[in-house]
Amino acid sequence: MTAFSLEPIGVIRSEIKNTRDAPLFYDEGAPNAFLDLDPAFTDGLLRMKPGDEIIVLTWLHLANREVLQVHPRGDAANPLTGVFSTRSPARPNPVGLHRTRVLAIDAARLHIGPIEAIDNTPVIDIKSVVSSSDH
Amino acid sequence: MTAFSLEPIGVIRSEIKNTRDAPLFYDEGAPNAFLDLDPAFTDGLLRMKPGDEIIVLTWLHLANREVLQVHPRGDAANPLTGVFSTRSPARPNPVGLHRTRVLAIDAARLHIGPIEAIDNTPVIDIKSVVSSSDH
Repeated sequence: MTAFSLEPIGVIRSEIKNTRDAPLFYDEGAPNAFLDLDPAFTDGLLRMKPGDEIIVLTWLHLANREVLQVHPRGDAANPLTGVFSTRSPARPNPVGLHRTRVLAIDAARLHIGPIEAIDNTPVIDIKSVVSSSDH
Repeated sequence: MTAFSLEPIGVIRSEIKNTRDAPLFYDEGAPNAFLDLDPAFTDGLLRMKPGDEIIVLTWLHLANREVLQVHPRGDAANPLTGVFSTRSPARPNPVGLHRTRVLAIDAARLHIGPIEAIDNTPVIDIKSVVSSSDH
């Protein structure tokens, strides 16, 4: 099948500087962060406002794309599991899915709530949370 | 910024044949469908089982990637809104996010619950639902 080309729309700025310091899930102590949008895409923010719940899709640029089975959460005590039954960053297309909240909007910079992404992670999309399908 | 290359891992087989027939959200009458995985990736299904809740990421191959503002749900009565505050397929990187359920697994074919994707939509990832971050 044909490959598709993803263009980063922005980048995460976080105090988490490497994967070792990253919490496994956002509710395990991830810090607030900035999402710096490429100014070419700020028209896409129209009507976004502080308090909005959003889903941020990232490109997990450090992930191993060749691995198809992992021990969940990197714990050897967890049985080997196919990556499609996990949230491991390892997977053929390492797209990260993060639910968080808009805290403030400062031109092309979004102040966002906790997100388990390391500094410099590319952002590929932002979506609104739809209660009917995301809950 | 550098672009990234996405490799389809499979394809949706659905009785929805075009965007005109597609419901806007999965709870609005989307049919069950098949997800035919490329056999190269079946190792990634280890431990997946019927009943599992999954998130399917698709590549919305018919979407307009140049549009940054839309009238939500295609209704002119809805005020123009930035695509990042919507779930419109139109967006710079048209990744579709679909929550559904595994009904049965038949080698590389997953029988899945309702999904608002048209026939032949490429699949780029499958993730488990994590209650702590997806609810």
